Amino acid sequence: MAPIAVTPESSGTTTPVAAQASTLTQAGIKHHVHDGDNLAPLDASKMIVTLNTSPRDVPAMNSPEVMAQKICTDHMVTAAWDEKTGWAAPELKPYGPFSIMPSASVLHYATECFEGLKLYRGYDDKLRLFRVNRNCERMRRSCERIALPDFDAKELEKMIIALCARDGPKWLPSDRKGSFLYIRPTMISTDPALGVQRPKEALLYVIIALFPDMSKSLATPAAPPALKGDAEEKKKGTSGLKLLASTEDTIRAWPGGFGYAKLGANYGPSLVAQGEARARGFDQVLWLFGQDANVTEAGASNFFVVWRNKQTNKVELITAPLGERIILEGVTRASILELARSRLAEGKTPGSLESVEVIERKFTMADIIEAHEEGRLLEAFAAGTAFFVAPVGLIHYKNKDIEIPTGDGESGDYAKVLKGWLGGIMYGKETHEWGVVVEEVEA
Amino acid sequence: MAPIAVTPESSGTTTPVAAQASTLTQAGIKHHVHDGDNLAPLDASKMIVTLNTSPRDVPAMNSPEVMAQKICTDHMVTAAWDEKTGWAAPELKPYGPFSIMPSASVLHYATECFEGLKLYRGYDDKLRLFRVNRNCERMRRSCERIALPDFDAKELEKMIIALCARDGPKWLPSDRKGSFLYIRPTMISTDPALGVQRPKEALLYVIIALFPDMSKSLATPAAPPALKGDAEEKKKGTSGLKLLASTEDTIRAWPGGFGYAKLGANYGPSLVAQGEARARGFDQVLWLFGQDANVTEAGASNFFVVWRNKQTNKVELITAPLGERIILEGVTRASILELARSRLAEGKTPGSLESVEVIERKFTMADIIEAHEEGRLLEAFAAGTAFFVAPVGLIHYKNKDIEIPTGDGESGDYAKVLKGWLGGIMYGKETHEWGVVVEEVEA
Repeated sequence: MAPIAVTPESSGTTTPVAAQASTLTQAGIKHHVHDGDNLAPLDASKMIVTLNTSPRDVPAMNSPEVMAQKICTDHMVTAAWDEKTGWAAPELKPYGPFSIMPSASVLHYATECFEGLKLYRGYDDKLRLFRVNRNCERMRRSCERIALPDFDAKELEKMIIALCARDGPKWLPSDRKGSFLYIRPTMISTDPALGVQRPKEALLYVIIALFPDMSKSLATPAAPPALKGDAEEKKKGTSGLKLLASTEDTIRAWPGGFGYAKLGANYGPSLVAQGEARARGFDQVLWLFGQDANVTEAGASNFFVVWRNKQTNKVELITAPLGERIILEGVTRASILELARSRLAEGKTPGSLESVEVIERKFTMADIIEAHEEGRLLEAFAAGTAFFVAPVGLIHYKNKDIEIPTGDGESGDYAKVLKGWLGGIMYGKETHEWGVVVEEVEA
Repeated sequence: MAPIAVTPESSGTTTPVAAQASTLTQAGIKHHVHDGDNLAPLDASKMIVTLNTSPRDVPAMNSPEVMAQKICTDHMVTAAWDEKTGWAAPELKPYGPFSIMPSASVLHYATECFEGLKLYRGYDDKLRLFRVNRNCERMRRSCERIALPDFDAKELEKMIIALCARDGPKWLPSDRKGSFLYIRPTMISTDPALGVQRPKEALLYVIIALFPDMSKSLATPAAPPALKGDAEEKKKGTSGLKLLASTEDTIRAWPGGFGYAKLGANYGPSLVAQGEARARGFDQVLWLFGQDANVTEAGASNFFVVWRNKQTNKVELITAPLGERIILEGVTRASILELARSRLAEGKTPGSLESVEVIERKFTMADIIEAHEEGRLLEAFAAGTAFFVAPVGLIHYKNKDIEIPTGDGESGDYAKVLKGWLGGIMYGKETHEWGVVVEEVEA
């Protein structure tokens, strides 16, 4: 299933209905989502394999080059797309630089999107992906938003699995049980035409990077290893992530924009604020939106709060809703909500944990402050692939620190139990349909 | 003047003040704008020249490859930056592909920005740039917003001039008087670290492309050459650009975002809406903002309206203000405002033209509709480097067409006189400080 780009020939027939029916970007997306009869679909079964004849050694997990996040495995998978022919045969080949024209669309107009997921070495010695189908489907939604071509999500999944099967055994060996590699599917427009227009050429690719484990240190990999002055001050006294609330000159996403999609355009513009937060000793920005200071995301992760309802005193797990499309539809987010709804419901919670009501709705900094002041704020945590489930210990908002309980000093009870369930599925302690075993290729 | 990136060592001294003083992104920008004592500044005088030994022939201006906007001149100028060393010596070298790592920041996080300006072959046979210093200064503001390194604007200007001096004589020869080349200064982050963080490596480069003349045809270069059905319908009856007003799911920029900067992140996300507009037979999207449908930009150009004031009946030239930073600070925009204030003021207008009051303020679709219905709407036009001054003949808004006068069928009187003055300066009919003559290098 590959798209036909709009051409003079196709526009006449599909236009009149779309012109009346819907809003502009949605109509533009629909317009492009139809089968291209004469275009080659993305087809992982056609993969051409060229092995790396100069493979590199696997560095230690805490080596400086791993900490710098510059190390990728021996191979990558690529597939080129062209408006006239569709998808070329995918290639599994040695990891190395691309040749990109200086006029390429991706270098000027940010025609790019990506995914992030992990390959896990289970305690049962198996390699697993976690809900990889979700990442592949979300990648399609990102592509359509940034005018990149569509594809069958199942074919991307096969490409990811082929790469993991090839490089996993060496780069995530049996003696690294409980560790992971970071997988980055990406699509860019390589179209060399400099005009501002829908790309006519694109490249889909998958690389695998060695990342330090960010969930264990709680600190971000790019955060300074030692902090001084004011920054050091913030580091004291609290465990968990320290978040700096965004200000009115710093909006991550807006209704009618593209905050829901994993576009490069959502990340680059956040780096100044993120760098400033880190320079001040915080781990991430807590992204607020609107005059009411609605709480949306933390860094590039979804954000959750556990509090007691003011009226009922019952425990609630709250996260921002997806309706306005300013929030990323996180795979970890969805999994936490599903697990909480099934395993933290009345009569199902483990041990002495109180049951939880799971709520997706808007909530504000004023709500958090009120809950904090009234002693109803139990936990807060960020959740996403990169940071996994990371407890939040402090929010700095309008020159005040809101300190949030982190239970035993490392994690609150709810974050801990949710993280445990997720980790159990990822690392094969629990057999679950979300854990997708990757059959390894013999070296 | 090159920046020091924030390091643990530098953060302690600058943080406490910034933490109190200002909003997040502005503080983050200030934090980084200071001299780097030990870092090499961008220095055009160090340029290393390597000439192209396989130069290509210059194609005809209406050849398919020029229409496709894929042709660049024989050379480009590049300068690499590294957080630890600053700017390397610029290079003037053969135009050709870059080698970019698949993990490079620009391919994932849209750490990129650009400029657009033109090289003009004057009727006096001289090559000229137009207010190039403005583009170089704006490029600095774009870089700071997207966490790319700072530089001395004068050095970028020298790099642009060096490239124009080298390739201008061949690619914009004396027999093409009244024509132009399109110059694209660009900065990207080549940093291969995959973590979401301020780039530690970057590449500044300048390329020159052959573009068809978009202002003469009024049509966009990427617009279908022939339109059918509904699209053809829209093409009839009106001259000038046909604009499709954006809908609520399609917001180009937001206060607290980055609409004022020439970031890739402002362009890619607009392509779906732009493609849909073109498929429906319109030339560009008219970008509206907010519940009041404030009129902001047209395509990637600034937007102007000429109408009579409801109370005074005096002629006014209106364009949206820069205050909320959602609108690009166009060089053509500024030049039109300056020329209108000086040459269309009371007692200074040419011929029988009425004088004009120049106003930068918010205005809405309701204002335009009211003026249209009351016969006060005189002209509308888009203005920017790519489209120059392009009269608008139609706005499609909420299923209704607003037809706007275009004077003699091609342009209204005010657009025509402003375009004439600007063109006169660009092509050497009028000697003016805005026209910067480029001394040509002998082949």
